[in-house]
Amino acid sequence: MNNLTVAVLQLTFSEDLGANREHCAAAVAEAAKKGATLAVLPELHNSRYFCQTEDVSRFDLAEPIPGPSTDFFAAVARRLGIALVLSLFERRTAGLCHNTAVVLDKDGAIAGCYRKMHIPDDPGYYEKFYFTPGDLGFQPVKTSLGTLGILVCWDQWFPEAARLMALAGAELLIYPTAIGYDPREERTDQQNQLQAWLTIQRSHAVANGIPVVSANRVGFEPHPTEKNYGIEFWGNSFVADAQGAFLARAGGEEEEILVTTLDLAKAEATRRIWPFLRDRRIDAYGDLLKRFRD
Amino acid sequence: MNNLTVAVLQLTFSEDLGANREHCAAAVAEAAKKGATLAVLPELHNSRYFCQTEDVSRFDLAEPIPGPSTDFFAAVARRLGIALVLSLFERRTAGLCHNTAVVLDKDGAIAGCYRKMHIPDDPGYYEKFYFTPGDLGFQPVKTSLGTLGILVCWDQWFPEAARLMALAGAELLIYPTAIGYDPREERTDQQNQLQAWLTIQRSHAVANGIPVVSANRVGFEPHPTEKNYGIEFWGNSFVADAQGAFLARAGGEEEEILVTTLDLAKAEATRRIWPFLRDRRIDAYGDLLKRFRD
Repeated sequence: MNNLTVAVLQLTFSEDLGANREHCAAAVAEAAKKGATLAVLPELHNSRYFCQTEDVSRFDLAEPIPGPSTDFFAAVARRLGIALVLSLFERRTAGLCHNTAVVLDKDGAIAGCYRKMHIPDDPGYYEKFYFTPGDLGFQPVKTSLGTLGILVCWDQWFPEAARLMALAGAELLIYPTAIGYDPREERTDQQNQLQAWLTIQRSHAVANGIPVVSANRVGFEPHPTEKNYGIEFWGNSFVADAQGAFLARAGGEEEEILVTTLDLAKAEATRRIWPFLRDRRIDAYGDLLKRFRD
Repeated sequence: MNNLTVAVLQLTFSEDLGANREHCAAAVAEAAKKGATLAVLPELHNSRYFCQTEDVSRFDLAEPIPGPSTDFFAAVARRLGIALVLSLFERRTAGLCHNTAVVLDKDGAIAGCYRKMHIPDDPGYYEKFYFTPGDLGFQPVKTSLGTLGILVCWDQWFPEAARLMALAGAELLIYPTAIGYDPREERTDQQNQLQAWLTIQRSHAVANGIPVVSANRVGFEPHPTEKNYGIEFWGNSFVADAQGAFLARAGGEEEEILVTTLDLAKAEATRRIWPFLRDRRIDAYGDLLKRFRD
């Protein structure tokens, strides 16, 4: 047995940065009270999801790492003895920012960072304007609790990212995320998107024989300028086991704190009977490094 | 619009090879009658699933390609004007066999072959004894109906295989398969396995923005020598669209012929809004060609 009690914090966020920070800290405290030794916050939890528009003033939200947010949350982690996965808008220098996850160990020390490698850009999610694609590669973060394969939101659609984390020894995959419905879309289309999102993430558990943890924000965030438009973040945060089965799943409407105990040793048993890593045809995978095979 | 009406033939098989062949031909005729222009047979449809044991006499089932089976089914395809995906035990020479899918176009001509690249070996599925891993790579087959990414059973667990087919222009993925429950396992474990199998295949549709077709056998096949043991092939053959949503799905108990019309042009729309191919980090995927990143 190698138990890890993880909390997924499915939260809403307001325009008030200070309130968001306190809201996150309170949720972490609640998670710790429920026995969690690791808590995962949603993507870019310091603010509302600012990528709905391309607005140069929003770069004011960016900060260095280490910096104010890591200082603040390190104190929280240390006080409560809980490890944290933060998701921050990292400023490296003027005109060079990343979407960066930071892992704080239980003592508040920075265990490692992951800079989001795949950056989306589609209506309402103008991330290529704000974030330079990560340059740290797909490296899991070693902590006192285990080796964490941190990936962020858009990364979840890429099996390559999950595989590379697993090949580097990740014992679970963790996705801070911010995804929702366009309220103008048909309900059927919305449901298909949600199901696709659940399916692709659960598939990474299946393909790699390790659990998957996904923390999404929830609730409506209006567009800063256009009326009757915005994003309905769809929640549905979840924890899936090494075969992709749901161990816990949040709803789509409310804030929730999901606390689940994972037995990381179970991956050993799963991979013995489903030994996909044994049979990968690395001799025939060369074209995965091509843009297209044309 | 670029419609393709595909039939998934979820069938059972007996010890009688001649009867199996006629049973397949009858199912193809039924599919053609229902309007299908492409029919997909389950894996190794000429016989019962012989890999439950390692038995040298079973190599008698192997045959060359072209050979008796392609001749037989070419006549069927030509007569009915229907393209077929066959799954055969290919003999290349003494002591060298493959698990090979053959695509016959509507005129009965062999459009192309795919030799199963990932070969399983676990209790009840001793395929490494019978089949040399494929040496044709992950190449889709061009037909008069479209470009088909044929993969076989165990391949379905490997996102790399699906991706390579998509990168080579496959317009849909097709999996002839033979997978089932061990009757001695717990019902919950069985259900988790089935769900994992559905999830991973649907995820290939999601990741690549193309439909997935999976044809499984159904029904119990006893172990040749051990009593109270065998495989309960779990059926659940399905067709999923370019977002992984089920368009058709068979049950787990009965033979079924699923006929579904796919609009292959829909992938264009799906990939415009979910442009995963745009954002792959091929600069950072090099370690996918490693066995393990240790």
